[in-house]
Amino acid sequence: MKGNVIVGQSGGPTAVINASLAGIIKASRKAKIPKIYGMHYGIEGFLNEDLIDLDDYITCDSDLSLLKRTPASFLGSCRYKLPSADENEAIYEKIFAILEKYNIEYFLYIGGNDSMDTIQSLSDYAIANGKTQKFMGVPKTIDNDLPLTDHTPGYGSAAKYIATSMKEIIRDNESFGASKPTICIVEIMGRHAGWLTAASVLSKDVDCSGPDLIYLPEIPFDVDQFLEKVKELAAVKRSVVIAVSEGLRLADGRFVCELSQTSEYVDAFGHRQLSGCASYLAGKVTSTTGLKSRPIEFSTLQRCATHMASRVDVDEAYEVGFIAAKAAFEGNTGMMVIIEVSEREPYLTNYNMYDIHEIANVERKVPLHWITRNGTYVSDEFVEYASPLIIGTILPYYAGGLPKHLTLKRYDHK
Amino acid sequence: MKGNVIVGQSGGPTAVINASLAGIIKASRKAKIPKIYGMHYGIEGFLNEDLIDLDDYITCDSDLSLLKRTPASFLGSCRYKLPSADENEAIYEKIFAILEKYNIEYFLYIGGNDSMDTIQSLSDYAIANGKTQKFMGVPKTIDNDLPLTDHTPGYGSAAKYIATSMKEIIRDNESFGASKPTICIVEIMGRHAGWLTAASVLSKDVDCSGPDLIYLPEIPFDVDQFLEKVKELAAVKRSVVIAVSEGLRLADGRFVCELSQTSEYVDAFGHRQLSGCASYLAGKVTSTTGLKSRPIEFSTLQRCATHMASRVDVDEAYEVGFIAAKAAFEGNTGMMVIIEVSEREPYLTNYNMYDIHEIANVERKVPLHWITRNGTYVSDEFVEYASPLIIGTILPYYAGGLPKHLTLKRYDHK
Repeated sequence: MKGNVIVGQSGGPTAVINASLAGIIKASRKAKIPKIYGMHYGIEGFLNEDLIDLDDYITCDSDLSLLKRTPASFLGSCRYKLPSADENEAIYEKIFAILEKYNIEYFLYIGGNDSMDTIQSLSDYAIANGKTQKFMGVPKTIDNDLPLTDHTPGYGSAAKYIATSMKEIIRDNESFGASKPTICIVEIMGRHAGWLTAASVLSKDVDCSGPDLIYLPEIPFDVDQFLEKVKELAAVKRSVVIAVSEGLRLADGRFVCELSQTSEYVDAFGHRQLSGCASYLAGKVTSTTGLKSRPIEFSTLQRCATHMASRVDVDEAYEVGFIAAKAAFEGNTGMMVIIEVSEREPYLTNYNMYDIHEIANVERKVPLHWITRNGTYVSDEFVEYASPLIIGTILPYYAGGLPKHLTLKRYDHK
Repeated sequence: MKGNVIVGQSGGPTAVINASLAGIIKASRKAKIPKIYGMHYGIEGFLNEDLIDLDDYITCDSDLSLLKRTPASFLGSCRYKLPSADENEAIYEKIFAILEKYNIEYFLYIGGNDSMDTIQSLSDYAIANGKTQKFMGVPKTIDNDLPLTDHTPGYGSAAKYIATSMKEIIRDNESFGASKPTICIVEIMGRHAGWLTAASVLSKDVDCSGPDLIYLPEIPFDVDQFLEKVKELAAVKRSVVIAVSEGLRLADGRFVCELSQTSEYVDAFGHRQLSGCASYLAGKVTSTTGLKSRPIEFSTLQRCATHMASRVDVDEAYEVGFIAAKAAFEGNTGMMVIIEVSEREPYLTNYNMYDIHEIANVERKVPLHWITRNGTYVSDEFVEYASPLIIGTILPYYAGGLPKHLTLKRYDHK
């Protein structure tokens, strides 16, 4: 008889991280796995034996459909870096003791770079120590920075949110401007890779100008050149909208947001809290040019807006979860499922698996030849790459005008 | 033969301001009005004779349907306060000369408080000077601060955006927290009235705890008491989410955001640009308690997210536009259309008109007896009031994964 499955979610949530969970549950039920456990708050909760019996929460396909439409990590997440076995073997002994106690044979972890490192460490340890458990990675990150896979589940929905909101913001910003120009600076996530910021270009269409400038973290940022560009645009346009990555850095390596002198924001440990990049740049635009400016930060909205998830993304997230679980049941370990795209139009894909050692701790950035106009825009190749990932809409289930979510807890408001 | 119609949009856009425009166009066509003009950028554009012939852009009902699904002001907007006739009679003479030149008999203005002041000034001037043109106001503001009408078109969709996003943010914030609590502070629009901030309570349901604290601008804000509350909550909860109005003020009348010492943000005129209220409070939470905090500002997204407009709101916005135009054709002037609600469940409404003198320049705030828990929450009466306004969803028209919009300009991206 087969052993049990455990699944964890790790790192920042995405709009579709629960679709991968749904795929794992479905594959496990199809394979007649006796018990499907969830880690409450990832590996951190697992180490406290905080396990969830998923049969208590998800009993039918209709629950799975609602789970697919639920934002953020249904199981709870963590940001926990597993020490190496050399540093701390006791922690590995503890993990395998818990796995044995619950008769867990298959360990699925949905996450980004750090989570793939966890899968690598655990599968290596298992092989080195004659353990039979299987460890499989399920890719997830809005940042789209995992290598080998064409793209990561979570990216398409975040890109769709960014493109849609950018389109709405551009229209809003264009509403004014009979007299003076308004400069709107939109800050988008992605500390090291510009995939999300680049997605702002997808707003460009016959009914939308798209952003005027797009600045990715792959290229060093020059504040003075930026201000010159803004002045040039303001001389000819009444609405200027600019997309900037939160991770813009100067040539000397400092983050742009570090230039902000906000002495108030010192935390208990004496660290200065940085105000945002867009906020700093908007202040700079107004103080040096007198132009009206407005910073907007998408913040966590770009990773939790499941109400407008991309159908392609939801489907792919579900499928990578399903395939990873199935692969584990077939005896694979130390691998991550990847998405391969053979044609972008029509969009044709298939799934594969790759050795986790090639993936963990490798960060994939936007190719430099896709960054154009002297570092202020992205190429048509990028548009071709990203366009199919935002297609289709998966509608929420509504009640009382609001999307319904599946939750571990039921709230009783008296 | 009847004269022509002109319609303008003024002030901050809403998700449904174009639905009112669609209603006016439909009523005008039904009444066989020869020409329907739009003011390009409101009364400011009108004064430059910048008029749009709407027949050039909207030829059929399918265009009207797309117009209803288009965010921000299709015609362009302005923030222009018409001087009184005593101060500047020449401007009135100019306005009426333009009206006569284009044989315009009906003047419809979609807007909030300032726009109703424009309607009042123009209709008063017409009556005093024996002019026959009719001036009608169409209510529009996400702030919901116009008197006499039960609520204003635009509020319901903004409330739906706020409640939906709040629900998604709460789930995101709850994803973490195996170890330390995270304090998320969400800043919502409404400088003087708390209607929008109060709408965050609508996120509360069996699947959502709702925000933990809600601070409206109607009640003086005490930073120390706030920090005490946060500490109390952080001692018992791992996720704390707080809704604050951008317009929170201390007992001495200063805005909370004015407490921020951001010396960088001085504009060309020497005015210090204020960073946001949430950003200031999040910094304060971290610096005094050491707790992890995150500020989020909905910014313009809350007024332009037509992709999730409330169907009730879209329909009402369309209807107030239609009714205002029809009333003008029947000879009414100096009035605004209001929405009356006879029952909230089932939701039963009808429309009426009111003398603009009772409306212009009057600001309606949240009743103090709807603010509970010592100024940190809102009552069930508020929930009953606002719940019907967010019901139903009007889906965008999608192409390439993104909502389509109707625009004055077509962009040709080479």
